[in-house]
Amino acid sequence: MASWKEVELGSMSKVQETLSSHSCGSCLVDKTETVHINPDVESPYTHQPLWFKMREYCRDATSEFFGTMILILFGDGVVAQVLLSHGQKGDYQSISWGWGLGVMLGVYASDASGGHINPAVTFACCVFRGFPWRKFPVYALSQTLGAMAGSAIVYGNYKSAINAYEGGPDIRTVPGYSTTATAGIFCCYPAEFMTRTGQFFSEFIASTVLMFMIFALKDEGNLGAGPLMPLALFFVVFGIGACFGWETGYAINPARDFGPRLTSYMIGYGHEVWAAGNYFFWVPMVAPILGCTFGGWIYDLFLYTGMDSPIHTPCVGIKRLLGPFHQRRVALQSPV
Amino acid sequence: MASWKEVELGSMSKVQETLSSHSCGSCLVDKTETVHINPDVESPYTHQPLWFKMREYCRDATSEFFGTMILILFGDGVVAQVLLSHGQKGDYQSISWGWGLGVMLGVYASDASGGHINPAVTFACCVFRGFPWRKFPVYALSQTLGAMAGSAIVYGNYKSAINAYEGGPDIRTVPGYSTTATAGIFCCYPAEFMTRTGQFFSEFIASTVLMFMIFALKDEGNLGAGPLMPLALFFVVFGIGACFGWETGYAINPARDFGPRLTSYMIGYGHEVWAAGNYFFWVPMVAPILGCTFGGWIYDLFLYTGMDSPIHTPCVGIKRLLGPFHQRRVALQSPV
Amino acid sequence: MASWKEVELGSMSKVQETLSSHSCGSCLVDKTETVHINPDVESPYTHQPLWFKMREYCRDATSEFFGTMILILFGDGVVAQVLLSHGQKGDYQSISWGWGLGVMLGVYASDASGGHINPAVTFACCVFRGFPWRKFPVYALSQTLGAMAGSAIVYGNYKSAINAYEGGPDIRTVPGYSTTATAGIFCCYPAEFMTRTGQFFSEFIASTVLMFMIFALKDEGNLGAGPLMPLALFFVVFGIGACFGWETGYAINPARDFGPRLTSYMIGYGHEVWAAGNYFFWVPMVAPILGCTFGGWIYDLFLYTGMDSPIHTPCVGIKRLLGPFHQRRVALQSPV
Amino acid sequence: MASWKEVELGSMSKVQETLSSHSCGSCLVDKTETVHINPDVESPYTHQPLWFKMREYCRDATSEFFGTMILILFGDGVVAQVLLSHGQKGDYQSISWGWGLGVMLGVYASDASGGHINPAVTFACCVFRGFPWRKFPVYALSQTLGAMAGSAIVYGNYKSAINAYEGGPDIRTVPGYSTTATAGIFCCYPAEFMTRTGQFFSEFIASTVLMFMIFALKDEGNLGAGPLMPLALFFVVFGIGACFGWETGYAINPARDFGPRLTSYMIGYGHEVWAAGNYFFWVPMVAPILGCTFGGWIYDLFLYTGMDSPIHTPCVGIKRLLGPFHQRRVALQSPV
Repeated sequence: MASWKEVELGSMSKVQETLSSHSCGSCLVDKTETVHINPDVESPYTHQPLWFKMREYCRDATSEFFGTMILILFGDGVVAQVLLSHGQKGDYQSISWGWGLGVMLGVYASDASGGHINPAVTFACCVFRGFPWRKFPVYALSQTLGAMAGSAIVYGNYKSAINAYEGGPDIRTVPGYSTTATAGIFCCYPAEFMTRTGQFFSEFIASTVLMFMIFALKDEGNLGAGPLMPLALFFVVFGIGACFGWETGYAINPARDFGPRLTSYMIGYGHEVWAAGNYFFWVPMVAPILGCTFGGWIYDLFLYTGMDSPIHTPCVGIKRLLGPFHQRRVALQSPV
Repeated sequence: MASWKEVELGSMSKVQETLSSHSCGSCLVDKTETVHINPDVESPYTHQPLWFKMREYCRDATSEFFGTMILILFGDGVVAQVLLSHGQKGDYQSISWGWGLGVMLGVYASDASGGHINPAVTFACCVFRGFPWRKFPVYALSQTLGAMAGSAIVYGNYKSAINAYEGGPDIRTVPGYSTTATAGIFCCYPAEFMTRTGQFFSEFIASTVLMFMIFALKDEGNLGAGPLMPLALFFVVFGIGACFGWETGYAINPARDFGPRLTSYMIGYGHEVWAAGNYFFWVPMVAPILGCTFGGWIYDLFLYTGMDSPIHTPCVGIKRLLGPFHQRRVALQSPV
Repeated sequence: MASWKEVELGSMSKVQETLSSHSCGSCLVDKTETVHINPDVESPYTHQPLWFKMREYCRDATSEFFGTMILILFGDGVVAQVLLSHGQKGDYQSISWGWGLGVMLGVYASDASGGHINPAVTFACCVFRGFPWRKFPVYALSQTLGAMAGSAIVYGNYKSAINAYEGGPDIRTVPGYSTTATAGIFCCYPAEFMTRTGQFFSEFIASTVLMFMIFALKDEGNLGAGPLMPLALFFVVFGIGACFGWETGYAINPARDFGPRLTSYMIGYGHEVWAAGNYFFWVPMVAPILGCTFGGWIYDLFLYTGMDSPIHTPCVGIKRLLGPFHQRRVALQSPV
Repeated sequence: MASWKEVELGSMSKVQETLSSHSCGSCLVDKTETVHINPDVESPYTHQPLWFKMREYCRDATSEFFGTMILILFGDGVVAQVLLSHGQKGDYQSISWGWGLGVMLGVYASDASGGHINPAVTFACCVFRGFPWRKFPVYALSQTLGAMAGSAIVYGNYKSAINAYEGGPDIRTVPGYSTTATAGIFCCYPAEFMTRTGQFFSEFIASTVLMFMIFALKDEGNLGAGPLMPLALFFVVFGIGACFGWETGYAINPARDFGPRLTSYMIGYGHEVWAAGNYFFWVPMVAPILGCTFGGWIYDLFLYTGMDSPIHTPCVGIKRLLGPFHQRRVALQSPV
């Protein structure tokens, strides 16, 4: 969330240039001569461009992977601690803290890729901020894999405690099918009284608020959070947890829900992870994407004054939406 | 609360100018030629000034509307979650957090209009900071409508849970008339032991503290919160909730109380929403305005050193108060 | 705590100059001609220097008064709310929040006088930072009066609730003499198991930590909190409350304890406010001053690198301490 | 954690220079003549270089000592308050707050030495950021002594309360050997259901997350926390406490655990402080160092773009690791 336009990674690419072209002579010498204090000691830095090249190529992916992993480590970790300790080592407010912290620290860790750590946010950025559509699959996949990795680590950390809570190392149950269910550590299961409409609406409105606030906080034409962005995101996510978190567990993030759900299925929680809540699992995949798109649209329609939004195209973006993609991209980029 | 003087919205008005005068030729070309990268692609941005004109015209109103809506979404949302989950998903401290967050994020969202999100704050700004009186009705109305919209969304989100809590979809009750009342989600009902004087004093003193602190935090001649303003407001509102929030629910905001109260009446909570607490409903409409005015007066009288306060006019502003309005406006604007 | 050296209040004194010398002619005209947009409308600002002169003269006093009043409004307010609601509207953590917030917001409000709001802090600044000794009585008196005013307002706000809690409007009791005592709202009463030595040590060590951290946070040669100072103070006071607050209630501030204690005596809580805890009342007056002085001395002795500390005089300040006061002042001011 | 490279302490060393060379005449006069307002009063500041020399020589040690002491004062203090008051004066979330605050304020206090206050962090800085290895023993020793001092002060403060809790002044027991054990105030004892592998893994993963986040927050090539660093560390440590703190008490710091454990052994808690949890005591000494090193390695391998990491040497640092130390130091320092 820190930089929506693609960061050019200026300093890094210069390093890359230096490393990969160290044999090409004169113009480079001017730069490196001042760097080498002892020119007779050959610098070891000029011999290993391979890992750097690979890393640079995958930077978006690794950055989103680790950002989402941090998010899930803190988020799933706090749910595990509160649940498995029977509320002795934290309460519902701790859970709000944990998820808020997870987002905050995940964004700090993943600024190189923009700190989305949420496919729904990436989607809304593609729609409203000209973020390249070709990057969407990479981002979504990295985020999901990061969430899976994070939840697997949480499972490893709390395995003994889960055994003690469930009653044995072979017992893994899902909320609604058992009173000692622990699957809620990993992903969201809705409260029992919720209808399907209510489930969907709850996820939708929470995601709308999330995206509306992200765009507001990023908008330099509004007040804008500036360097306080991660802290402000902490407050947004804490607030969504405290105010809209009860009914469906506020996934508001397809990767956050689907990744750990898949992990828990692989661990052995059984088919119930998909069937629970009348096949609730697809709601936190679809509703956040629709909600974030709607929230971004509301913000751009009424409050955004920047020129990079499709709202500034005819019919406040609807004509653009129905037109072909490539035309839209050209138009968006023209008045840079 | 971010900028009390009217923001000129420089960049936006330039955009407007560009859009509305795209037929007038030469002088504009100089600006746009550098903008269009591909001059043969006609920019779609020059064809749609209507929505932008409307939006610009209503900017103050939309900004206050959404700011207050955010405030109520978080504030009423957290009360709903704590109440309807029987304290399982939050406690009183969560409620303090929710309202503090609501104000913080509402101010972030509504900086274009100054981030008042409270008619009493707007009123005090008119009295003490030369904010134009003609804007007061627009602000107050937008804030009230935003509060109504926010509370309606909260109602939609928690409808199933309210049904479960009240005992049925047709039952909607008010505190003091039922043990499963849910009207307290939307607006304030006083504690039972409170006298009318106590109710009024409690709202008055909380509003006084609020306005005193807002003026202190905005005062560059004092320490001033600067870019931490929304965070500092979070602490102020959290503190008022934790320290003065019990007895009357700390409305400290006429729109925050009246708007949702009207919504709850429209939903079907019945005449009791007005009658409860011996017709308490007018107290959170009147006391915050008087309290904020008093708090602002105390701050200006003793601590404020800026030149834009009526305290700097004869008899520390009392003579001005009794004189005609237009004369006051002239005097205030003269020594800019 | 924001500016230990006396603020010159440049802009204010210019205003004063303008106001008080408006009859002396030529040199002033140069300044004001550019100010008056309509020169034919006589500015009303030039006719009222009296209040401004008085206010300017008492600025330190009013600033400390209101800062300490804000501190007590939030601090005593949160204790009242938690106690009188039988823990329904807050818990011990809320109390930590309330006092932390009170200090934070009090410092924001009283920057004009340096934001001490604590006689022990003023004392340590006199000893270690060359703060003028002649100001100490004014500061201490203003802080105590501010604390009395704040606690009186809290009493007024919670009078009905105190009546309900104590059992009647004429009953006012002190901890240790009754099970429904409410005197703990206003000032500190120690836990029953504490010895006199333990009481003193607890207050002493908490004050030492407070002053050590204040000097660390103000020290630009260290990391320094800079504009985050009030926020950092929130964390310091919250931390002292959470970590050292149980045994004696962490007065760590003579004005915070003595002022409200006097108010509660005047209200009618009886002689027991002084006698409780084996005449505990003098401990929070003496221990914070000694503790703050010790904490400041430790910080200056080991970590402070600024030149304005008496540690930089012979025998790390001990010789200076034993010498006459006026000599010390000269020496401190010489190497400005 | 504020400045990994050694601070030159510019202003201090100038002072030193002035003080130590006050007899050498002319060039100094130019500087001090402007300083002395009354040149006939001989400045007392020129006569005491000894304490300053000693202090300057030990600056790293004193800075880490006090930083770690502050950490333990808040951290052990909050555990003592919550435990000894039977949860009346705080809950598990308070403990998370206390440790987070301790780290935040400890870092503010010890910036002169870089604010490590954790031998595992110092170790990782030696490995990955070219921090001089010769300083490691000094840092580790100072940190451990600071932790011992802090826990001794906490013991003194809560001695009466410990007597009341344990049942007498001679009874001091360790968790697992008694139901009124208080040794948990000072250091970590694992939950009973934990295997040795689980203990180790839990400490390891928490330390990994800690170091990963510290490097992320310090990385200017990433978003970076900048002046918010102490606040961000508060959130990191709060989060680790809330999410990974249950099973082993999240030592994540050899000094934080070993120092107070030694203190509690000296106080008289007996051999059980070492034997408890099947001689758990070595886990929080070894696991944090390995975990922090691993976390730093992960961050540097995938995300760090700065040039001062051994990842930028052949074989991503593994060859360097196996090579001699002095060669590594030369290489690291060459391209400054």
